[in-house]
Amino acid sequence: MDPLTSALLTDFYQLTMLQGYFEQGMEETAVFELFVRELPAERNFLILAGLEQALEYLEGLHFSAQELKWISDRFSKPFAEYLSRLRFSGDVHAIPEGTVVFPNEPLLRITAPLPQAQLVESRLINLVNLQTLIASKAARCVIAAPNKFLVDFGFRRAHGAEAGLLAARAAYLAGMDGTATVLAAPLFAIPVFGTMAHSFVQAHEDEGMAFENFAHAQPDNVLLLIDTYYTEAAAHKVVGLAARLSQAGLRIKGVRIDSGDLADHARKVRAILDDGGCPEVTIFASGNLDEHALERLVKDGAPIDGFGIGTRLDTSADRPYLDCAYKLQEYAGRPRRKYSEGKATWPGRKQVYRHFDQQGRLRNDSLTVETDLKPGKPLVNLVMRGGKRIAAPEPLAQIRERCAVEISCLPEPLRSLDSPAPYLVIVSEALQHLAASVDEATCSQKTSRAG
Amino acid sequence: MDPLTSALLTDFYQLTMLQGYFEQGMEETAVFELFVRELPAERNFLILAGLEQALEYLEGLHFSAQELKWISDRFSKPFAEYLSRLRFSGDVHAIPEGTVVFPNEPLLRITAPLPQAQLVESRLINLVNLQTLIASKAARCVIAAPNKFLVDFGFRRAHGAEAGLLAARAAYLAGMDGTATVLAAPLFAIPVFGTMAHSFVQAHEDEGMAFENFAHAQPDNVLLLIDTYYTEAAAHKVVGLAARLSQAGLRIKGVRIDSGDLADHARKVRAILDDGGCPEVTIFASGNLDEHALERLVKDGAPIDGFGIGTRLDTSADRPYLDCAYKLQEYAGRPRRKYSEGKATWPGRKQVYRHFDQQGRLRNDSLTVETDLKPGKPLVNLVMRGGKRIAAPEPLAQIRERCAVEISCLPEPLRSLDSPAPYLVIVSEALQHLAASVDEATCSQKTSRAG
Repeated sequence: MDPLTSALLTDFYQLTMLQGYFEQGMEETAVFELFVRELPAERNFLILAGLEQALEYLEGLHFSAQELKWISDRFSKPFAEYLSRLRFSGDVHAIPEGTVVFPNEPLLRITAPLPQAQLVESRLINLVNLQTLIASKAARCVIAAPNKFLVDFGFRRAHGAEAGLLAARAAYLAGMDGTATVLAAPLFAIPVFGTMAHSFVQAHEDEGMAFENFAHAQPDNVLLLIDTYYTEAAAHKVVGLAARLSQAGLRIKGVRIDSGDLADHARKVRAILDDGGCPEVTIFASGNLDEHALERLVKDGAPIDGFGIGTRLDTSADRPYLDCAYKLQEYAGRPRRKYSEGKATWPGRKQVYRHFDQQGRLRNDSLTVETDLKPGKPLVNLVMRGGKRIAAPEPLAQIRERCAVEISCLPEPLRSLDSPAPYLVIVSEALQHLAASVDEATCSQKTSRAG
Repeated sequence: MDPLTSALLTDFYQLTMLQGYFEQGMEETAVFELFVRELPAERNFLILAGLEQALEYLEGLHFSAQELKWISDRFSKPFAEYLSRLRFSGDVHAIPEGTVVFPNEPLLRITAPLPQAQLVESRLINLVNLQTLIASKAARCVIAAPNKFLVDFGFRRAHGAEAGLLAARAAYLAGMDGTATVLAAPLFAIPVFGTMAHSFVQAHEDEGMAFENFAHAQPDNVLLLIDTYYTEAAAHKVVGLAARLSQAGLRIKGVRIDSGDLADHARKVRAILDDGGCPEVTIFASGNLDEHALERLVKDGAPIDGFGIGTRLDTSADRPYLDCAYKLQEYAGRPRRKYSEGKATWPGRKQVYRHFDQQGRLRNDSLTVETDLKPGKPLVNLVMRGGKRIAAPEPLAQIRERCAVEISCLPEPLRSLDSPAPYLVIVSEALQHLAASVDEATCSQKTSRAG
């Protein structure tokens, strides 16, 4: 049972429902859409990410012999046999990864026999929620610190290994420059960065000796951590070392500051480096950073060239989840709508049309039913038919380029980190008519008391 | 490259430091301790969890051929050859899982050749941070709702698959009754629960028919979701159905409410069920719950028998990370101490002695150096010697029992969900002397400016 690809990566109620569908022969086509109910107060937009992993999951979906054994101990034998043949054979429509998206827009639509479409709910939400969450947070960092070098440092406090790896992917996708997480490099072809921790300095008897040893061991990657003891004293050591290293043809690329008042230390260190004839040595900062800290440091004019952003990025610390849902929109050709208080959904198969102003900035979206053709740029496309992708996986670099364009097209109010700015998503008349007609049918549920 | 066990699940700086250690022949014994710097404002105590996964990781640590290929493209060949032989051969001391712990206490101590002890930092923090975070949150839910049936519902919004699985383990360890995450059952032997989602009801033309079909498909597990349309109307259907099912020898165990004012709905539904001759049908509630919501519902006397707690538990939403650190305490027999502003650490190999009052409740802890024997219950024990465990993995059920005792021994102020309550961790004189002597040696770093 592979912990990342197992068909048992689902909620138990999916299995009990599947047994019910199996016994009733309910296998007609179901349409589910994955969407975000509302934006967190701390976000003006979201960056969609995670589609690639969602498609990989659907392509590989099957129950292993060991999993079927576990199931047949708890469910009927015919049901276990039925599951042994289950594969994902449906269609997937989606908005491309790296796109700016808003509440109620169908990020992903699954059209498949009801049991298949039901089973995959838990893992699809799990994958799309995480990466969309992190990409949206990372985009805010990119907006806060334009032209700064931004690296994901968050693996250690990410929620497990998969979270750290997918956070590295989502952060790079959204415009950051790379990650410190090694395994993300071979898995996703993301640039990887890192030089030394405090322990490297502490393990040496002398800080200057630690710097010198590191420079000889990693001559192309000399970025020295200078806050283990006294930051400015260490900066003076860097100046002395730079002169001696240059005689050996070696160059110090930069220093990193990881504690204290980063702006204040950076100014003092910049002065020491410049006075010492090292204007080319860059300053990199880290330590409890997020988009708000970046914005303050940049507005302050702190002489910092790059930032490592860790825990608060990889956990999306101010808002560690999205209000993601995956809801039945249609079954056996009939539109459906959930009516629970505060959680009503728009029924049917939907499309989003995006409108831009004359400068190419986002103006508004229209949410409508798929058959209601509208002007504007349609966002939802077919990506998988009959369980097979209709195109090769999109390269991450291409998604990253799309995302950069998307962020550049955000209207100014939506780029604000602090002020909530609304974005108009028009609900079409056709969709409102559809919802009303579904509600009418639903009303009968109120009065009918018989089973 | 297995995404959950790869030796590349680390920060790139660990590899660059290891190359430096390799070139300098720095392989003497290092002592690192993993601890939490300070409690979040929202927590009065932590429950330690994740040790089992940390030990599994250390036991299995090695670089695969593919990983070595990746490394040899970026580092020297002799270094890659050196890494091909690297295994974890050190000792591990730890506090048992399920124990109540506080800041600065050594949760885990690694004593190993410097490169080994360095390499494992990132993944050890990653594993212990996550489970300790979730177990601590779950313990608060257990305190808020004593004698209620509590189930983890959070997989879908957990940060990836591993996060969801380990959250299920941590929540069960801390006293919850089970999880909805199927794969956690075979992996960790955790009870798994679930019946139906709204889509099951919506896929049927009629809500009552959905209930009836489910009862026949899952006769031992009839818990019906009643808020898809109109909660109280659905409760009346349940009453009607119960009578008919009982003729067939079937029993409705309970109903679930997932939206709206849970206390208000629960009261109305309870009355409908009781008036309808169904006093034995239980009420289960879910939807945006956390320990504060549980506390309010319990204090209100809402007639709810059990709760599903999802997103806010699995993401520890009010505080999605701990200030965990893994710091070098000693190298080559000499104690070390990091001095960065606001991040100074206590040096040396440490032990914690716990003191109890006459009622068996926690009174205070003493943090001291390992050689300074004190009265009280020592918390830190040897668990791995020379890379091998000294005992079989501790059964989860046993850890869960320990945790229940630990929670029962919390003094009343620490059990408060809202009021911060301090707990005294005395820093021994011996430890303060040691820190001062390390600082004295460190002072030389300030003035020495030569490399």
